[in-house]
Amino acid sequence: MKEIEKLDKDYVLHTYARNYVNFKKGINATLYDDENKDYIDFTSGIAVCSVGHGNKRVADKIYEQVSNITHISNLYVIEPQAKLAKRLAELSGYDIRTFFANSGAEANEGAIKIARTYGETKFANKRYKVITLEHSFHGRTITTVKATGQSSMHQSKFAPYPEGFSYNHTIDDIYNSIDNETVAVMIELVQGEGGVQPFDKEKIQELAKFLKQNDILLIIDEVQTGVYRTGEFLASNLYEIEPDIITLAKGLGGGVPIGAIMTKHKDIFAPGDHGSTFGGNYLVTTAALEVLDILEEVKDSGALDETIIYFNSKLNEVYENNKEIFTANVGLGLMRGLRVKDADTLALLIKTAFDCGVLVLKAGKNTMRLLPALTISKSEIDEGFIRLQKALAKIKA
Amino acid sequence: MKEIEKLDKDYVLHTYARNYVNFKKGINATLYDDENKDYIDFTSGIAVCSVGHGNKRVADKIYEQVSNITHISNLYVIEPQAKLAKRLAELSGYDIRTFFANSGAEANEGAIKIARTYGETKFANKRYKVITLEHSFHGRTITTVKATGQSSMHQSKFAPYPEGFSYNHTIDDIYNSIDNETVAVMIELVQGEGGVQPFDKEKIQELAKFLKQNDILLIIDEVQTGVYRTGEFLASNLYEIEPDIITLAKGLGGGVPIGAIMTKHKDIFAPGDHGSTFGGNYLVTTAALEVLDILEEVKDSGALDETIIYFNSKLNEVYENNKEIFTANVGLGLMRGLRVKDADTLALLIKTAFDCGVLVLKAGKNTMRLLPALTISKSEIDEGFIRLQKALAKIKA
Repeated sequence: MKEIEKLDKDYVLHTYARNYVNFKKGINATLYDDENKDYIDFTSGIAVCSVGHGNKRVADKIYEQVSNITHISNLYVIEPQAKLAKRLAELSGYDIRTFFANSGAEANEGAIKIARTYGETKFANKRYKVITLEHSFHGRTITTVKATGQSSMHQSKFAPYPEGFSYNHTIDDIYNSIDNETVAVMIELVQGEGGVQPFDKEKIQELAKFLKQNDILLIIDEVQTGVYRTGEFLASNLYEIEPDIITLAKGLGGGVPIGAIMTKHKDIFAPGDHGSTFGGNYLVTTAALEVLDILEEVKDSGALDETIIYFNSKLNEVYENNKEIFTANVGLGLMRGLRVKDADTLALLIKTAFDCGVLVLKAGKNTMRLLPALTISKSEIDEGFIRLQKALAKIKA
Repeated sequence: MKEIEKLDKDYVLHTYARNYVNFKKGINATLYDDENKDYIDFTSGIAVCSVGHGNKRVADKIYEQVSNITHISNLYVIEPQAKLAKRLAELSGYDIRTFFANSGAEANEGAIKIARTYGETKFANKRYKVITLEHSFHGRTITTVKATGQSSMHQSKFAPYPEGFSYNHTIDDIYNSIDNETVAVMIELVQGEGGVQPFDKEKIQELAKFLKQNDILLIIDEVQTGVYRTGEFLASNLYEIEPDIITLAKGLGGGVPIGAIMTKHKDIFAPGDHGSTFGGNYLVTTAALEVLDILEEVKDSGALDETIIYFNSKLNEVYENNKEIFTANVGLGLMRGLRVKDADTLALLIKTAFDCGVLVLKAGKNTMRLLPALTISKSEIDEGFIRLQKALAKIKA
């Protein structure tokens, strides 16, 4: 057993089935281990490292900030936090205010608190029920585990869970599940853990319209889809809807722990209703401001759209050339999935791809998920797919 | 209205009654605003900035780390995370493993999940109830709001909450509340939000012994008391108890968002039972390792004990000289409180102290709370108390 493996197993609670490669350095979408072997990273820390590893612009801003102030209490105004909130409003195009949390789970907790507050204060009869989808993933706190629609997540050992969550199989099923206690529908537009399947745009627009007409809130969990992952700033922009609440996290800070709850219900909370010690501090909001500057440039220059087209053409080649392994090509923007014929083959593929020097992820039961940095270079894309094709050849041999 | 105030009010959800001073720079326990006015900081971001503002050693380590890797997925081992988990075991003296979260609330969520898992898997009849104290504070997620004993926090608008939490007024009351479904007692040893009142050491030791005999878990929430705040690495060390679960957050990373769940039930979780995207990433664990190195040096050199003695002698002077305003001097180490005769006087004192250039906090209804950086200098302590005395003189005039 490697020293690092022993250290980890001795002292860290075992909640992950870990790969014990020891990454020491990263440059954009390439990682280097402790033997200087390089890996093309098609995972970016599960959509977190949106501007790549070792991004110099972000590193410089972080250094400047932490040399001055890393953190103060939210009892005092925090200038980069206010600026970031403004940027989120501008980039999204929505008339919103934002609260900053420390993760996607905390962002979704805040979204649920907002929805329930709406349900209690706006109606004569309290509304509190939130409908989510069966293959959703919304977090690891007790309430967001319950909000997550995957029944395997609702382990009895973590119970009792809070009441008020129910799950539907499809968007179409939601209409019949709504009752006079339903306050909100919470969905991802492309389910990250649920198999990278984007929902139909018209169906989402119809749902959004119906919910608005019935004064039921639409919460879009953009923890994974947000911050240009699907090609637009928000997947909600791509779907041309105006949700009541949007949550962000992963890609927003390029690796610093940050979550955001954006809502057009600007006065829903009163002072004291919600809070966070770390949330929105100088470090994380300064980092996020630089990440957004970089990504806006990448988007506005046309480079992001080019990267999406190039990446997906290469991905489609791999898909077309390996139809005996892949059954579908799904996703949006740089949030992609190839359905694999069975879970065992997927596990073998992920391992073989790693051995060949390219990192890919699992989603759901049998989807190979790819979430490269939005700044990935053409040569990294080329090399990554060469290695992936090599892994596929090995499997087929 | 200042520009920064307008920006904040326009774009950030209003959940804090904010002071709109705009801090631009910090050096150890001194902050500077946008007009270069200096403030002695007796709050350190509510016990977060344990090694002061702008700490150069931490800034350099962060810069080195984020220039290489900020974040990868927990699907791969993260060397500084494993090292930090080992350091926590060594410094605490406990035989434990650690899971890393992103905040105190997330750490307490994890603690509750561990306790409930224990309650379901170790007993023929499921145990799931957690007893906390009436003046406790455990977080802002829906479950940790419910775990928090302050009834004002259990707003009906955030309901339904998960079942299984009850509250006691005193440590003595806990014994009679325990039933055969009780799995854990969760307490802070010095209640941060509850008035900075340390519990009696013998009573805590008796409780710990009783719980152990009855196979009920003891969870110590050290989100505020941990990481040398009370003079020892953990308040649990000072109280000479061996809790089943300890949670950390605030001071651990010197300002980076981090939480930790430490437990001697090393194999309580299986892979997949719990997780976090950001938790324990390269950035936050590298920062925390440096914070711990600095604080261990400060402790081992005797400097921390000297600072505690010096700070508290100055604080006691202020207390003795203003008995018409203060009614008690409470706390441990550098987690201190002066009870103020009434809430209005406290509000006026916090405001006047700010005007005089020293930052202090409120705790509970009428306690002035002081949580200086553990690295605060004698001259900063001197200046801070001169300014506080000036504020007191103004109030009395």
